[in-house]
Amino acid sequence: MSKNSQGNFFEDFAVGQEIHHATPRTITSGDVALYTSLFGSRFPVQSSQALARDIGYASAPVDDLLVFHIIFGKTVPDVSLNAIANLGYAECRFLVPVACGDTLSAVSEVIGLRENSSRKSGVVYVRSSGFNQHGEKVLEYARWVMIRKRDEASPAPETVVPHLEKQVNADSLGDAIPVLDVSKYPSWVGGSEFFWDDYEIGEQIDHVDAMTVEEAEHQIATRLYQNTAKVHFNLFAQKDDRFGRRLIYGGHVMSLARALSFNGLGNGSQIMAINGGRHVAPLFAGDTVFAWSEIVGKAELPGRDDIGALRVRTFATRDLPCGTYPGPVEGGYTDGVILDLDYWVAMIRRS
Amino acid sequence: MSKNSQGNFFEDFAVGQEIHHATPRTITSGDVALYTSLFGSRFPVQSSQALARDIGYASAPVDDLLVFHIIFGKTVPDVSLNAIANLGYAECRFLVPVACGDTLSAVSEVIGLRENSSRKSGVVYVRSSGFNQHGEKVLEYARWVMIRKRDEASPAPETVVPHLEKQVNADSLGDAIPVLDVSKYPSWVGGSEFFWDDYEIGEQIDHVDAMTVEEAEHQIATRLYQNTAKVHFNLFAQKDDRFGRRLIYGGHVMSLARALSFNGLGNGSQIMAINGGRHVAPLFAGDTVFAWSEIVGKAELPGRDDIGALRVRTFATRDLPCGTYPGPVEGGYTDGVILDLDYWVAMIRRS
Amino acid sequence: MSKNSQGNFFEDFAVGQEIHHATPRTITSGDVALYTSLFGSRFPVQSSQALARDIGYASAPVDDLLVFHIIFGKTVPDVSLNAIANLGYAECRFLVPVACGDTLSAVSEVIGLRENSSRKSGVVYVRSSGFNQHGEKVLEYARWVMIRKRDEASPAPETVVPHLEKQVNADSLGDAIPVLDVSKYPSWVGGSEFFWDDYEIGEQIDHVDAMTVEEAEHQIATRLYQNTAKVHFNLFAQKDDRFGRRLIYGGHVMSLARALSFNGLGNGSQIMAINGGRHVAPLFAGDTVFAWSEIVGKAELPGRDDIGALRVRTFATRDLPCGTYPGPVEGGYTDGVILDLDYWVAMIRRS
Repeated sequence: MSKNSQGNFFEDFAVGQEIHHATPRTITSGDVALYTSLFGSRFPVQSSQALARDIGYASAPVDDLLVFHIIFGKTVPDVSLNAIANLGYAECRFLVPVACGDTLSAVSEVIGLRENSSRKSGVVYVRSSGFNQHGEKVLEYARWVMIRKRDEASPAPETVVPHLEKQVNADSLGDAIPVLDVSKYPSWVGGSEFFWDDYEIGEQIDHVDAMTVEEAEHQIATRLYQNTAKVHFNLFAQKDDRFGRRLIYGGHVMSLARALSFNGLGNGSQIMAINGGRHVAPLFAGDTVFAWSEIVGKAELPGRDDIGALRVRTFATRDLPCGTYPGPVEGGYTDGVILDLDYWVAMIRRS
Repeated sequence: MSKNSQGNFFEDFAVGQEIHHATPRTITSGDVALYTSLFGSRFPVQSSQALARDIGYASAPVDDLLVFHIIFGKTVPDVSLNAIANLGYAECRFLVPVACGDTLSAVSEVIGLRENSSRKSGVVYVRSSGFNQHGEKVLEYARWVMIRKRDEASPAPETVVPHLEKQVNADSLGDAIPVLDVSKYPSWVGGSEFFWDDYEIGEQIDHVDAMTVEEAEHQIATRLYQNTAKVHFNLFAQKDDRFGRRLIYGGHVMSLARALSFNGLGNGSQIMAINGGRHVAPLFAGDTVFAWSEIVGKAELPGRDDIGALRVRTFATRDLPCGTYPGPVEGGYTDGVILDLDYWVAMIRRS
Repeated sequence: MSKNSQGNFFEDFAVGQEIHHATPRTITSGDVALYTSLFGSRFPVQSSQALARDIGYASAPVDDLLVFHIIFGKTVPDVSLNAIANLGYAECRFLVPVACGDTLSAVSEVIGLRENSSRKSGVVYVRSSGFNQHGEKVLEYARWVMIRKRDEASPAPETVVPHLEKQVNADSLGDAIPVLDVSKYPSWVGGSEFFWDDYEIGEQIDHVDAMTVEEAEHQIATRLYQNTAKVHFNLFAQKDDRFGRRLIYGGHVMSLARALSFNGLGNGSQIMAINGGRHVAPLFAGDTVFAWSEIVGKAELPGRDDIGALRVRTFATRDLPCGTYPGPVEGGYTDGVILDLDYWVAMIRRS
């Protein structure tokens, strides 16, 4: 038996199973600089140690999606190396601030299994958690993936489909953000005069800017997360795939859309939760990504007047400017839409 | 009214107006590593903490052009998003040392306005300054840009054209460089036996080496500076532009030329001032950049014998080796020249 | 005489000559992040400060090959700028731990010279050493390179060919690794249940995963090491070369193969020595790299039961999966093999 790993197949999972994923990872200012260079994010709290400390952070928070991608990346060799399709995620919450110097590791629990009628594959549901070096849970999310069976003749497991909420309850948001002294947050830092009180449900914002993606860029990003999914890196194998090309990690589109959303949501300093998302179509190198957002919810946070919650639905497109707000249409989405992401943003309130 | 920004148009500027640009930015060793990886710079004072501290710096200085690009990048969304042409810059001085951990922010003052006779656009003159977290001005420069009008019918402002010096006075140089104990600077660290006393006005130096630029590289660099100029990133829009391609940020050429100049100016440890520069022609991905320099001035610095000032004019070319010193010719420049940069370098003096 | 350097030619070298190479270099967490992003390495000791300190390191060690590439890069402008061929290396040993914050510099001694019968070139043998800021030697290796003569008429030097060992003696290994408390090294961190005792001589491991390389990636890596070899960067000149393309630094393949080897050698935490290596064929951008390894030796380390030594021979290929273990064949190597690297790995022993 060889000492390498070919990843887990559907019949390797059992409900209740706990997987400790390889390679604990210290996040450094090098990771943060790379993240900035790959997405051009401009949210001020992540960008400035001086500002972050002035308003009450112990240290500038690491971009939430960078934390998400690193935890997600760790789960790939064990959870999704033999995935046919990433079906969804839900109940993603950021729980504790993450700063440079923190060491993150990931654990997943199998929370559901359902074999497909074809008997060739099945759906695996996991709840993955990221922990820091103190053992505090910094992040958790549920995810479900369609995985190949190693042997079609393997018996089907008992079907368990977990209940997952369509949205994270606003009352549970904000744990990863200390109480901020927003009197020390001048409006120029976010490049926007608009704060939580100024946004209304139903409002739409074209983020105007756009970003073309190169093969080297998405590979550098995805390796930074130590994500080993073969489709992103192996052109030799992908040449014979139906697309004939490397597929770009879906999280790359999330990060691009989030970075572009600065132009319109500049004081939306952190993501507190991700309710769910659909990767509607793949992105390829050479494509140009645009984004727009709709405000779909708004909530005060219990006992806090420094920040409020905005529920945002951000759509990303490829080679399609967003002035006309392309999105869902009957039977699917406008051609060109690649991402429909539903999440809660912490927006600074005017002091 | 949407909450995004489309950038300022000519009629949005007024002489005396002060603009605080978004996103304060802490510079880290991650930024420095990326800068090294993108340009291959080898100047020893920026590369070695041990050397920098030995000779008198509190900490290794961040490459001057990295500081320049970060401040410049911050001004783009407010000053030049609707620029038709970057016309020039002048009076750029580095005033205070910048080290990793410093947080930089940028402020611009409008110092001149002149509507074009076409009434479709005008020239905006700004003086931009970078400040550190202590409020000290670390850098300033003047710049003028041709900007579109939003509405051709808008009335023309009073014409104000500021006086800008053709060169920074040598007496005002060196504030960002502490007095150095050059007895602790061995000649091998800069890879050159030549120091300030060895250079003569009129001397020409072919920098020999060359660098081909990839799309991913200039995008990674330009996003690192949080520069949002669309022409560098949006292939979808650029396809219909006269060049049909993304344009590479002019500052990328400056950094490449400066890095290449190590081979011939290896003990020229810092840029103290930029007198001016012309981006003669655009650079595109796939092109190979070469560079050569002429020593056009030389000055002692008042009260200092650790460093002297060399006024250097560096030319960069694309796909054109520099053994023949291509440069200005009647009516313009030799074909292939893309940059003509005039600046003051601090060169170590022999102890 | 110009102040630039065109590199040394064969007749510029003399046996016994010592060369102090330019640009001391402080290694930072930025360099480490870039290295991770370029190769996707997942060995836990380098990735996690918390783990490294828990088990006995003062600080997480910098990846050994990153240290090697940085020292190697410094030698290029003086040793191999006019190389026709890199012929080999041997007796490479890692001697002292290197952590972020350390400043490295490089010195080479010429240990052999042999003019070729053509009289147009000759072989130069050097022993290169890397030192930290305390003057401790962190790394040494011997290397031999074929170098052009400036002038064919120059007299031949006396032939001196040094004796170089075919393998580094196992008794001399491990100096760069402190004694580890492996009871604090849980098996999940390396993603593998297999430790030193589990490996047998003759065992073969397909590393399964693969990585396609882009021009921007190898240029970014090679500049990070401040390596100036022209063939990696100058497309304008390479167009007229026999390959018509930029050549990728051989060290890039070493790092890719080492990173891929995590899948099968996950607890092989550090390279202690490189016995030798052959760059069998060049790698070009767009090619996909695969790797497999054979265990060719095994040794206990004197007085240590925390780690043991595995002598590993890793083969890298391009566009050739490694399930059939392609390697040496009569008269050379299987088509597609690009690297045959022989080295000693420190493998964690079960506590």
